[in-house]
Amino acid sequence: MSAGKPVQGSGEDHLIAHYFKPLAKHPGALGLADDTACFTPPQGFDLVLKTDPIIAGVHFFPDDAADAVARKALRVNLSDLAAKGAQPAGFLLAIALPSNIGADWLEAFARGLGEDADHFNCPLLGGDTDRTPGPLTISITVFGLVPSNTMIKRSGASAGDRIFVSGTLGDAALGLKLRLQPDLGQKFALDRKQREHLLNRYQVPEPRNALADDIRACASASMDISDGLAGDFTKLCRASGVTAEIDAARVPLSDAARVMVGRDAALIEAVLTGGDDYEILCTVPPKNVDAFRAAAAVRGIPVTEIGQISAGDQAPRFRGASGTPLIFEKPSYSHF
Amino acid sequence: MSAGKPVQGSGEDHLIAHYFKPLAKHPGALGLADDTACFTPPQGFDLVLKTDPIIAGVHFFPDDAADAVARKALRVNLSDLAAKGAQPAGFLLAIALPSNIGADWLEAFARGLGEDADHFNCPLLGGDTDRTPGPLTISITVFGLVPSNTMIKRSGASAGDRIFVSGTLGDAALGLKLRLQPDLGQKFALDRKQREHLLNRYQVPEPRNALADDIRACASASMDISDGLAGDFTKLCRASGVTAEIDAARVPLSDAARVMVGRDAALIEAVLTGGDDYEILCTVPPKNVDAFRAAAAVRGIPVTEIGQISAGDQAPRFRGASGTPLIFEKPSYSHF
Repeated sequence: MSAGKPVQGSGEDHLIAHYFKPLAKHPGALGLADDTACFTPPQGFDLVLKTDPIIAGVHFFPDDAADAVARKALRVNLSDLAAKGAQPAGFLLAIALPSNIGADWLEAFARGLGEDADHFNCPLLGGDTDRTPGPLTISITVFGLVPSNTMIKRSGASAGDRIFVSGTLGDAALGLKLRLQPDLGQKFALDRKQREHLLNRYQVPEPRNALADDIRACASASMDISDGLAGDFTKLCRASGVTAEIDAARVPLSDAARVMVGRDAALIEAVLTGGDDYEILCTVPPKNVDAFRAAAAVRGIPVTEIGQISAGDQAPRFRGASGTPLIFEKPSYSHF
Repeated sequence: MSAGKPVQGSGEDHLIAHYFKPLAKHPGALGLADDTACFTPPQGFDLVLKTDPIIAGVHFFPDDAADAVARKALRVNLSDLAAKGAQPAGFLLAIALPSNIGADWLEAFARGLGEDADHFNCPLLGGDTDRTPGPLTISITVFGLVPSNTMIKRSGASAGDRIFVSGTLGDAALGLKLRLQPDLGQKFALDRKQREHLLNRYQVPEPRNALADDIRACASASMDISDGLAGDFTKLCRASGVTAEIDAARVPLSDAARVMVGRDAALIEAVLTGGDDYEILCTVPPKNVDAFRAAAAVRGIPVTEIGQISAGDQAPRFRGASGTPLIFEKPSYSHF
């Protein structure tokens, strides 16, 4: 105790007020000046809830740009809402900062986060800030809304349903390889645009939230691909009690990924199991296929049919170019 | 790729299925087998949302018992729901595990978490598991429910309202001192029971969720004390646009804390600013005081009136034994 110094706010209060309060535009955030947020759910809707933290050195590189880190932290969560057919309602942010994180970093982080929150219509509702002796850790929890009983689960696929994926797969996994071994760019004779495409796809996912209403209208089962198509599709089949054979040649690839796989066919394993795609994997009953394709075209989101669900409870199979089954060393990204 | 090994689940799937799925009893958890949880909010209620992670070496000791860590992780969040007058509805768990965490630890962690989830009627709805190169980090997000527009904010206090706290304050801060300097037990001639009381109060908070309905019925403003009474009460006064003078002698102390402060009066600063109390600080209009006291007595939760709100926007003051103002070096626990 010392004399003369009045009771004042802490550095933590200042940090929240300066960097994060400007993002807390939703009335339920209470200006980040209360213990909790207060959210009034609209009648006739279910809440869709997800938390997926990202950790420096695990999910991103410690020297990644702060605004890219912010976008990834939010987008990996938004991607789950998209896959479930939910519209974003808001998010909570818990951030644990190592001591080397300064004002410039926080400024750029908050700017990137605020831009994405606006773009995806997903306001900051509340959160928490801590110091950590460990790596920068950003834990976002998102809340989405779907009309009651319309959330699209993994478990709704039936024999005959067509299997769709959005965008292109494997870019992030190849981008990570390229980030770790920059000389791969030369080895595979990738041009600057191809290299940047792959690196960007790892660094900042492009969640397919614009497709959420169409997934809800058309799909029987859906999930986002975060741990690789092979493992994630296995989960969807298991949850639905169905199976399938997928011709790997039907899996949509970007130009850059096509070049790399064309020169080293074994890279198809990275494409199918590497993860971090944050694309949609969904099954669509035949009667909805035309409507789904048309809706995706209107949104400007490419979707590709990669196969058909069949009856059976064996694990799904992937076939390579010669028709032989592809068997993966590690079928799905796992932290354990 | 190698031949013969079918696509199977990952270690992460096994970990979730083995340790956490048994806790996911709520139908909205979908058995932890989907991307997200799905929660149907009852009509006429608002959702109260909070995330407050705990980090080894920051909020708890790396060698703390796993079940105690689990309880603290959930309880620091439940405490906020209690203060807002909300009943728990469920939680999401994101856990980042260093490589030294093994099966025994997870078993005990899941057991402690499950027992608390049952006790506080707050089911696990979903979550995420990661490996981390850093310290064990547990990020829980809780959801609570209050009848529409009845959440008790920090901002509702008016001149004349009585200021109440639950339980006793400072135990956790003194318990932390004792944990860091075990010889303080001898210095202050604490008996075994007193030492254990203080150490336990730091390790496992006792959130006052049983008082939530009474806070909602009786209080004008409320928050939980997590960063110390001095700083937290300053926040409540600022949010409400009021002030107060608190006689520090009215702040309720446990036997153990009374012994320590009796022998070293300067320890009142740790009591009032150390934090980790997870007790309720609320203001009660005079007409509700009798009802609040009676309700708390029925719940078996001690509540103590420590002062009265007055008009004014200056920071609240604490007076010491001689009537002189207490001025704190660091009025509130802050990570920054």
